[in-house]
Amino acid sequence: MIREQIVALREEMKKAGVTAYFVPTSDFHGSEYVGEYFQCRAFLSGFTGSAGTLVVMQDMAGLWTDGRYFLQAEEQLKGSGIDLYKSEQEGVPTIVEFLIERLGKKDVLGFDGRVVNASEAEKLSKELEKKGASVCYEMDLVDLIWKNRPSLSKEPILILDQEYAGKAREDKIAAIREKMREEKVDLFLLTSLDEIAWLLNIRGNDVKCNPVVLSYLALSQDQVLLFVNQEVVSDEVKKELEQSNVSIQEYSAFYSYIKKIPNQTKVFLDKTKVNFAVIKHLSNEVKVVNKTNLTLLPKAIKNPIEMEHIRKAHQKDGVAMVKFIYWLKTQVKKEVITEKSAAVKLEEFRGEQEHYMGPSFTPIIGYEAHGAIIHYSATEESNCQIKPEGLVLLDTGGQYLEGTTDITRTVALGPLTEEEKRYFTLVLRGNLNLGAAKFLYGCRGENLDYLARAPLWEIGMDYRHGTGHGVGYFLNVHEAPNGFRYKIVPEKEASAVLEEGMLTSNEPGFYLDGKFGIRHENLMLCVKDEKSLYGQFMRFDTVTMVPFDLEAIDLSLLSEREKQLLNQYHQMVYKTIAPYLEGEIKLWLKEATREV
Amino acid sequence: MIREQIVALREEMKKAGVTAYFVPTSDFHGSEYVGEYFQCRAFLSGFTGSAGTLVVMQDMAGLWTDGRYFLQAEEQLKGSGIDLYKSEQEGVPTIVEFLIERLGKKDVLGFDGRVVNASEAEKLSKELEKKGASVCYEMDLVDLIWKNRPSLSKEPILILDQEYAGKAREDKIAAIREKMREEKVDLFLLTSLDEIAWLLNIRGNDVKCNPVVLSYLALSQDQVLLFVNQEVVSDEVKKELEQSNVSIQEYSAFYSYIKKIPNQTKVFLDKTKVNFAVIKHLSNEVKVVNKTNLTLLPKAIKNPIEMEHIRKAHQKDGVAMVKFIYWLKTQVKKEVITEKSAAVKLEEFRGEQEHYMGPSFTPIIGYEAHGAIIHYSATEESNCQIKPEGLVLLDTGGQYLEGTTDITRTVALGPLTEEEKRYFTLVLRGNLNLGAAKFLYGCRGENLDYLARAPLWEIGMDYRHGTGHGVGYFLNVHEAPNGFRYKIVPEKEASAVLEEGMLTSNEPGFYLDGKFGIRHENLMLCVKDEKSLYGQFMRFDTVTMVPFDLEAIDLSLLSEREKQLLNQYHQMVYKTIAPYLEGEIKLWLKEATREV
Repeated sequence: MIREQIVALREEMKKAGVTAYFVPTSDFHGSEYVGEYFQCRAFLSGFTGSAGTLVVMQDMAGLWTDGRYFLQAEEQLKGSGIDLYKSEQEGVPTIVEFLIERLGKKDVLGFDGRVVNASEAEKLSKELEKKGASVCYEMDLVDLIWKNRPSLSKEPILILDQEYAGKAREDKIAAIREKMREEKVDLFLLTSLDEIAWLLNIRGNDVKCNPVVLSYLALSQDQVLLFVNQEVVSDEVKKELEQSNVSIQEYSAFYSYIKKIPNQTKVFLDKTKVNFAVIKHLSNEVKVVNKTNLTLLPKAIKNPIEMEHIRKAHQKDGVAMVKFIYWLKTQVKKEVITEKSAAVKLEEFRGEQEHYMGPSFTPIIGYEAHGAIIHYSATEESNCQIKPEGLVLLDTGGQYLEGTTDITRTVALGPLTEEEKRYFTLVLRGNLNLGAAKFLYGCRGENLDYLARAPLWEIGMDYRHGTGHGVGYFLNVHEAPNGFRYKIVPEKEASAVLEEGMLTSNEPGFYLDGKFGIRHENLMLCVKDEKSLYGQFMRFDTVTMVPFDLEAIDLSLLSEREKQLLNQYHQMVYKTIAPYLEGEIKLWLKEATREV
Repeated sequence: MIREQIVALREEMKKAGVTAYFVPTSDFHGSEYVGEYFQCRAFLSGFTGSAGTLVVMQDMAGLWTDGRYFLQAEEQLKGSGIDLYKSEQEGVPTIVEFLIERLGKKDVLGFDGRVVNASEAEKLSKELEKKGASVCYEMDLVDLIWKNRPSLSKEPILILDQEYAGKAREDKIAAIREKMREEKVDLFLLTSLDEIAWLLNIRGNDVKCNPVVLSYLALSQDQVLLFVNQEVVSDEVKKELEQSNVSIQEYSAFYSYIKKIPNQTKVFLDKTKVNFAVIKHLSNEVKVVNKTNLTLLPKAIKNPIEMEHIRKAHQKDGVAMVKFIYWLKTQVKKEVITEKSAAVKLEEFRGEQEHYMGPSFTPIIGYEAHGAIIHYSATEESNCQIKPEGLVLLDTGGQYLEGTTDITRTVALGPLTEEEKRYFTLVLRGNLNLGAAKFLYGCRGENLDYLARAPLWEIGMDYRHGTGHGVGYFLNVHEAPNGFRYKIVPEKEASAVLEEGMLTSNEPGFYLDGKFGIRHENLMLCVKDEKSLYGQFMRFDTVTMVPFDLEAIDLSLLSEREKQLLNQYHQMVYKTIAPYLEGEIKLWLKEATREV
């Protein structure tokens, strides 16, 4: 039996004359997470994981997803007539390999060009051309068969006051225009939602956990055109934006606008960010300058006011987290707490804090073996009780007007094994040593990543993820171009020179399948240290303010310097958080941050 | 008054119709060091430093050189009519900037295309074209005015027995041909002297300290053409090479050969290595594949037999160095020793070792303040007496049939100041920590460089050079593509993934101008460590076998782990070197490698 959505799609494919149809998980803006409207792949396949791509032909239907989702996909695809392609497993072709292999002369690959990245689609279409096949990118076949498709999100736009943004939108726009003159371009097309939100000091709620506004932007020396659903713009917001000479256009009018960009215009855009339809709508006579978005770096380099607010946001988040950990440690012996109910409780504590705007990502609360699943998020089926024993991994974050937090603590709920303590301590050493790095300006994340991994590498162990990612300011929790990785992957843009004001996570971990997971994550602001005749030295200010669980540390594995670093951190945590606590919990924090 | 060579050159320039003439310091092969024949810039300008470029026009003559040589150049250029351009100083144009500024419509820049790198000359000539100027690269005007020009070096070719090379030339050639098939190219043009020597298992003596043979090579699937001065090829060598189907051609015939390469031939070459004349001689219809030489990586990855020999070479070099340090420490109190006479004595000790072939570079023996001059080499004028006090920096190396050595030790000749001991110890910590790195396969030098610099960076200090470079096997002491640097400079090719068999120096330092210099240099072979479920771990085997001067260490600055690393190293040094010593010096070594 074939899933009815696939049957219906095949009918539409016949009518449209396409041999294969390609459905990625993306929106018109290349967002990391996508709204309801964009869940075409889930609608068609029934597979609800966050990552996956579907390919449908008349004689096949295949879903590609990665190791996180093999079990879930197998389960959800049962009886659908869709085969599972396990990405990066031996003998499994990539989607591109598969399409190039299967499509030949006169075959047509159809997709909605608005949800496929320009740079990838260009490569794919060139490869297909060589085989005599072609692509047709102006079709949204899913829309034809998806009755009751959710509408595009249209949450109201919020103006982020300059008090929080730290810099007026006019000043930001002027700075980008200056860069445009340096690049000798006439027009800058920006479609990345967090970059538009940053540039205009606006926020929204159109993508879960990401306070962004579905919009496109076109910037020239004399115009700022914001293409957005008119319904989301209140009169006040409209007035405020128009005062900055931002002109509001209809969201869907963006494509007709770019079609009309005059020949010879020099257009700046980032092909790794804009979608394929954008570049296909441009006249061939338009001159494209394809480089990293001009907004990427200034957004990543937080201004002094943002930096100050970020410290404040982390103080508030620290209070909520300390209350939560205290509650969890004491109540776990007294009541039934599950991974899901713990998340609800933590959300309550965060909600008590001023200017709290919601979670910055879906909480990862993984008890014991669940902690070893790196992207775990409790479902109705997996949700389990947290008991007064073993380790629980808590990776959560909040959005505040003062910034975005992302913190992981691994907490002991009862006596631990030697093995648990050992790995807890080795991972902690990595976190402390990276946090204490002092380095000459010019260093990148890859110069420092070793510090976090060395304690595990010494014994032949590792963690299979990056050590750190950039974090937005009341924006996306994952942000380019800063990060800590030892292998440079240019496409990932996670290896920029570390600049004063960049906010990066420091999150080494260790995972023992079926047993437990450990991760220690702090956010760190890069700041200037001394300037000597050798140049400007830099260091990190850790802004996350929550103790590491002393009950889980094997002190014999820490060097004197590492003990000192831990004590210094805990002293700072107590000093920052204690003023907001009273009574028993304040005493508990004193004990939890005691000198070792 | 104008130097007569400049006057004569200007006459030739008029006859040849060139506006400006450009004289770099290079040979036909882009070698790091050049022979007598290629010292045109020194002949014309009178400036004898190792680096510098001369530009002559009718109304100006300018010499560009770097900070190492400002004083020497000022001295030597006095009264020559040549201006000194201090490279990389504020307000000083680069040569390219200068030429583009000065040359306009119909101007002609002349140079000998055989001594200018293809990639740089292409860029320059494109820039000049934009201004309406052109280049003429087929002229060696210096040759017309240089009476008694030394002839091209023609030292005899030596065959490196497979016993030492570890791999037959036929096998090396077959492996490169396999790569050529993968690259789908017909012909590989190789002009880098050390790569030709490596490929054919030949050595020579045409560049000081670099056992290479002036030659070009053309490799196809059925031919190996070696273009070399016939006089250097003995009958035996000729026979041996011909047995491997290497056909000997006249050195100068290379250019007429490449002129005749048939149209449509796919030619593999590295434009950062071949000279401009090479690519200009190719027909426009030849298809050039411009990539890193196919020989670079296999040369850098030493084979198991080379690795074994390298350990042997370092054992012998260690014996010579230990004898020398013992001699220096004891005799400095009894006789007059100068920087130059010390170098002669060290050469004697090395000469006692079997298969010693000569120094691998000009010795750097810098006493006290001279030690702070990073590229110091004693001249008649600077040579000074070494006294029984302070520090002497000894950076020297040897060529053996079993490999190339490069070692720096900094030796205390009497009581030291606290400051000297402190920096000696901080630099040593960097050396020990980098030497002890264990890392997952895939790491590059830039992932580990921090380990060597951290002790200095912690206190705002640094050294202004890379931490390490690749080293050849009885070949050039500086070899791409491995190295340790924190900033990646793609042109330098010093950041390759560290592969088993790569030999790299580990040489942090510290320099206090006018006072002293410290450098601790060991060579390290990259080897496999354990393989776990996370992948293949790698580490370094230090092959240099000479103690670090315990009299210069402030033990209070070493961590327990660092003491352990030092003790382990010294134990290994004693075990390796002591069997070759007797009597007093053996006792001294025991003491010099005692546990701390």
